[in-house]
Amino acid sequence: SPGAANVGSRDEWVRLNVGGTVFLTTKTTLCREKSGFLARLCQDDPDLPSLKDETGAYLIDRDPRYFPPILNYLRHGRLIIDGGISEEGVAEEAEFYNLSTLTAVIKEKSKLRVSEFKSDQK
Amino acid sequence: SPGAANVGSRDEWVRLNVGGTVFLTTKTTLCREKSGFLARLCQDDPDLPSLKDETGAYLIDRDPRYFPPILNYLRHGRLIIDGGISEEGVAEEAEFYNLSTLTAVIKEKSKLRVSEFKSDQK
Amino acid sequence: SPGAANVGSRDEWVRLNVGGTVFLTTKTTLCREKSGFLARLCQDDPDLPSLKDETGAYLIDRDPRYFPPILNYLRHGRLIIDGGISEEGVAEEAEFYNLSTLTAVIKEKSKLRVSEFKSDQK
Amino acid sequence: SPGAANVGSRDEWVRLNVGGTVFLTTKTTLCREKSGFLARLCQDDPDLPSLKDETGAYLIDRDPRYFPPILNYLRHGRLIIDGGISEEGVAEEAEFYNLSTLTAVIKEKSKLRVSEFKSDQK
Amino acid sequence: SPGAANVGSRDEWVRLNVGGTVFLTTKTTLCREKSGFLARLCQDDPDLPSLKDETGAYLIDRDPRYFPPILNYLRHGRLIIDGGISEEGVAEEAEFYNLSTLTAVIKEKSKLRVSEFKSDQK
Repeated sequence: SPGAANVGSRDEWVRLNVGGTVFLTTKTTLCREKSGFLARLCQDDPDLPSLKDETGAYLIDRDPRYFPPILNYLRHGRLIIDGGISEEGVAEEAEFYNLSTLTAVIKEKSKLRVSEFKSDQK
Repeated sequence: SPGAANVGSRDEWVRLNVGGTVFLTTKTTLCREKSGFLARLCQDDPDLPSLKDETGAYLIDRDPRYFPPILNYLRHGRLIIDGGISEEGVAEEAEFYNLSTLTAVIKEKSKLRVSEFKSDQK
Repeated sequence: SPGAANVGSRDEWVRLNVGGTVFLTTKTTLCREKSGFLARLCQDDPDLPSLKDETGAYLIDRDPRYFPPILNYLRHGRLIIDGGISEEGVAEEAEFYNLSTLTAVIKEKSKLRVSEFKSDQK
Repeated sequence: SPGAANVGSRDEWVRLNVGGTVFLTTKTTLCREKSGFLARLCQDDPDLPSLKDETGAYLIDRDPRYFPPILNYLRHGRLIIDGGISEEGVAEEAEFYNLSTLTAVIKEKSKLRVSEFKSDQK
Repeated sequence: SPGAANVGSRDEWVRLNVGGTVFLTTKTTLCREKSGFLARLCQDDPDLPSLKDETGAYLIDRDPRYFPPILNYLRHGRLIIDGGISEEGVAEEAEFYNLSTLTAVIKEKSKLRVSEFKSDQK
């Protein structure tokens, strides 16, 4: 499976402390969208003003509840949002992390729902 | 990105222990609304009767479930409340933290929904 | 703000281990309803057969998911229950903690909803 | 209150590690339904092939999300299931823990709802 | 009960760190579907490029919120998805873990619901 690529190397794993909750992922996942803010974390860029917590996780000042759909998008390329989670909240994060393709996908999905709703009303 | 400003300095990061759950954020975020109770935590005000837990997090005797919308409002200036979370609960917290602008935003949103509901009923 | 009263004293803070989840609050909060089971925890009553866990939190054999509305009621005097949480579950806890005023508030709210529902049906 | 019986003795408290999440309860609670799998944990049965984790919690290979209604049933004798939780999931656990009375209660509740639904449809 | 088989042996227990959240289960559970990616974790396959975290849990770069239905399927053979959880999200994981039978079960359930919905509309 593609997700298993390189996972045997300790260097490959990255911890992210998003607003107090720790997420675990791989550099392969973070680097999938080159333009994004998260891609810089997999490049060991010495110019990136990032700080790690005492467990070695990168500190990110954002809400952890909207982060899973962002990370999953990088993992498998699809946008999946659970029932109780605000789409608007995920859109805000996609913009923050500079994931322009994902931002477009959310907008498209949102438009689609509005037009379906309108055609139902007729 | 604006959220990344200054994040490379360890001094910039603040831990909050809200009713037993730890949140992580920056002084820049906490100081965004000067009037608020949280702004005092970024000023290292020696007169503030605050206590920290054993991990250095400020102790706050409030419910952690209503805190994310409060913190996110300070992070990006928008009010986003997930489906399962009571708006009334968030309003109560906005008042406690003395965030008058946010309190106004919640009231406005609430009025808007009531009037939409009434016009739907006609 | 009233919630900040006395919070600078380490003695004021109390940890509760409710069914495995730790909540943090103050003696001022716990003592607000004198009749309740929780008020005894703020009186350092030597006759109370309570035990603390290894972190100094009082052990309580109850469900942690229904505890936040109980604790919030003591914090600010209002009953707020999130969408996904069973009102019946909160009522059961209010009775266990011997908070008779809160039990009355829950019953009142429940009656109100039933009568609103009936008038909607007409 | 009945829940406070014996809680002052350290021996009375039991930790359960259900699929990775730790729950805290008392032997009095676990022993309430004699037939159940959990009752064996309060009897210090040397024949029970149980293992404890490094914190002394009994290891149980089941889902922690469906466990609270099970434990609450033993605590106060009532079945309460939150909105987002699958009734089917709780039934599966009641069967696993060999709580035949609870299994019967869930089936009864389920039948009741189906018949109410049918009478609403007429 | 079948779930209790062999649980007295420390070797039988396996920890999985799925995207930052730790789950606890047994080798018996993981080995139930031979074809799956998880079955390899119970075979102590020296060729498997897996890494463990500092607590000895296998690292898996996937979302922990969709993992419980996957693990429960291996535990008791039934598919149970809670209200707030996206079915699409679980399907994505079933495919990743290479559990073809479970993938088929999810598709069947999904078809059934669509056809019920269509017959309701007539």
